[in-house]
Amino acid sequence: MVVSLERWVGKVAIVTGASAGIGATISRSWTEATNLTDGDSQLWKEIFDTDVLGLCIATREAVKDMRENKVAGHIIHINSVGGHYIPNLPNTNVYPASKHAVTALTETLRQELNSIGSKIKVTSVSPGVVTTEFVDACFTRSRTSPPPELKEMVQELPSLQASDIADGVLYVLATPPHVQVRLCNIRLSSILNKIYLVGL
Amino acid sequence: MVVSLERWVGKVAIVTGASAGIGATISRSWTEATNLTDGDSQLWKEIFDTDVLGLCIATREAVKDMRENKVAGHIIHINSVGGHYIPNLPNTNVYPASKHAVTALTETLRQELNSIGSKIKVTSVSPGVVTTEFVDACFTRSRTSPPPELKEMVQELPSLQASDIADGVLYVLATPPHVQVRLCNIRLSSILNKIYLVGL
Amino acid sequence: MVVSLERWVGKVAIVTGASAGIGATISRSWTEATNLTDGDSQLWKEIFDTDVLGLCIATREAVKDMRENKVAGHIIHINSVGGHYIPNLPNTNVYPASKHAVTALTETLRQELNSIGSKIKVTSVSPGVVTTEFVDACFTRSRTSPPPELKEMVQELPSLQASDIADGVLYVLATPPHVQVRLCNIRLSSILNKIYLVGL
Amino acid sequence: MVVSLERWVGKVAIVTGASAGIGATISRSWTEATNLTDGDSQLWKEIFDTDVLGLCIATREAVKDMRENKVAGHIIHINSVGGHYIPNLPNTNVYPASKHAVTALTETLRQELNSIGSKIKVTSVSPGVVTTEFVDACFTRSRTSPPPELKEMVQELPSLQASDIADGVLYVLATPPHVQVRLCNIRLSSILNKIYLVGL
Repeated sequence: MVVSLERWVGKVAIVTGASAGIGATISRSWTEATNLTDGDSQLWKEIFDTDVLGLCIATREAVKDMRENKVAGHIIHINSVGGHYIPNLPNTNVYPASKHAVTALTETLRQELNSIGSKIKVTSVSPGVVTTEFVDACFTRSRTSPPPELKEMVQELPSLQASDIADGVLYVLATPPHVQVRLCNIRLSSILNKIYLVGL
Repeated sequence: MVVSLERWVGKVAIVTGASAGIGATISRSWTEATNLTDGDSQLWKEIFDTDVLGLCIATREAVKDMRENKVAGHIIHINSVGGHYIPNLPNTNVYPASKHAVTALTETLRQELNSIGSKIKVTSVSPGVVTTEFVDACFTRSRTSPPPELKEMVQELPSLQASDIADGVLYVLATPPHVQVRLCNIRLSSILNKIYLVGL
Repeated sequence: MVVSLERWVGKVAIVTGASAGIGATISRSWTEATNLTDGDSQLWKEIFDTDVLGLCIATREAVKDMRENKVAGHIIHINSVGGHYIPNLPNTNVYPASKHAVTALTETLRQELNSIGSKIKVTSVSPGVVTTEFVDACFTRSRTSPPPELKEMVQELPSLQASDIADGVLYVLATPPHVQVRLCNIRLSSILNKIYLVGL
Repeated sequence: MVVSLERWVGKVAIVTGASAGIGATISRSWTEATNLTDGDSQLWKEIFDTDVLGLCIATREAVKDMRENKVAGHIIHINSVGGHYIPNLPNTNVYPASKHAVTALTETLRQELNSIGSKIKVTSVSPGVVTTEFVDACFTRSRTSPPPELKEMVQELPSLQASDIADGVLYVLATPPHVQVRLCNIRLSSILNKIYLVGL
């Protein structure tokens, strides 16, 4: 799909947490052991600073900019499956907590904008595991070198493409002014079976 | 938007509950008093039979048909805002309960299809108040004749159009085979303020 | 614990759905195959009539009685784990849907009573698998005769006792007038592991 | 109720976020304006560091201690109404986000302990507005001096007492080893009406 983004310049803020999300978390669980009962405070702090505070600050600045320019803009928070329930996977650590915080922030922002009569729309787009981040995270972020057979297995796992999420964002943006998509949860058709099969 | 539905014949089942949903409920609260503490068992039964059992049966038949024809089809449940939280409106009655049941049914169906390795996709599209049903319900379903000024007020209320929901359904259907939109919640940008202003 | 119920006569309504809940559902999944894609409409109807409509009617009558007698009573809905999320078990059928409906009914009732200034309290007590119903259901409700080794296995499964739920109800009832426990979810400490181990 | 805490020494960790919770947030909304669209990054950081990271660290240390001493202990997270839905109040800021994070952390911890076969129990006790913190917060934390009539009004608001929450904790602790209360939500019977009446 070829799309001109020109009509949205200055009108849309797509705000994410860390660039590698659930994929990074899952892959990290293969290569390091991090969890709530013996994890590292500094790592937790980085996750909340990036995924939650970073998102808060970027959102505040986008809203300020839109209001100063009298733009009825659109804030899109890229959340995660982990923002809606706790996936029963090992070593998910503070990841679901950070994404549950984002779920609450999106809704709090909507109420706040509504209470001041703002026309700015707020949408949560919530993807499952996306492929690029997944593979990247698995092999560039791990502290130890993963075994070669793991690399092969991961590359064969089905996963969402970045363009799948982009399609969702485009649909959300294309809605007329009176329509606000609150939540759009985009998942793989059958990934979970596969993930469980490989041992998670 | 002009769309040919031919490519989806036999492949898609869009299953709803009663044709007039939250709109009917809201309008009914202006014209009759029905609630949980002194409501009518027969009315409750009708709502569950139509909105929940009817949806179960239609879904079962659609899945059977798809599996017999080896079609990797798509079940779309049209749910409601009332399926996700309890709107603090008077006389909502068993309506939120029936829609919470639908929310659970959609997810139970997805798990069941996943457990038997089916490629059938399942999506919940969850609209807010849609205009046609809202006005219709208000003036054709009420047991007593509503006052003329109410009719005027209701017609001026902003609300979703049926085509807004159709756009969401089209986006969901157009996703590639590996993508499954689980949930798409479509609301008005600012309706709730208005509804509260008119006394609900 | 020995408790005199005299002080609560006419003041408390403990409303349940079918007497055998999640236990019956789980055990039925061993002995019959019932599910959403090929299940029996009549069975579904019975479940909604009993677990949802029955609860609605009993609740309405209890509230009427309390209001006529000017009693600041207490309605306690006995819900289930299935009212809060979809347990990933085979053949759960419409069970989670019926319990999600109860979750919504409890909250709708609270809002309704609040809106009319009633002092009646509303509480949801939500147990996991309770032992008596579990074993009973497994061996008296099944259409086919279960194998003897299943009976032995089930009897050795850890599970909640009816008295565990009673303790929760007593705590809830003993709160002073200004305190309302909205939700009390009582589970086994480690049952889920065991259930999964036996093949569910 | 007279209770000896001796039997629980070394066995129980009651972990809270900031000592003044929803009460502080509500009162602050009367005396300062802080929100998501023009709030202060430093304040947000403090809230997440205290309410979320602080809780994570305290929990980790408690679990370590229990495991080293082979104690089948009990972790009780004191959460908040804001951990379960977004109260439609002005200036709630990042408060609901921090508490939604706690909701996720409690559940993630339970899954993690379960996966390693630990007998440590995990419970979320979730109070509404508690009186002492409410009044204190209103008059010692505000940056500006509140009007005297506000002080009077606040002191007359009904609210939970610290002992009401303590009663809930005692019930949870008194359950036998096989019983785990997952969630106990303790609210005022009718406070919300009052809060809305005073302008929130």
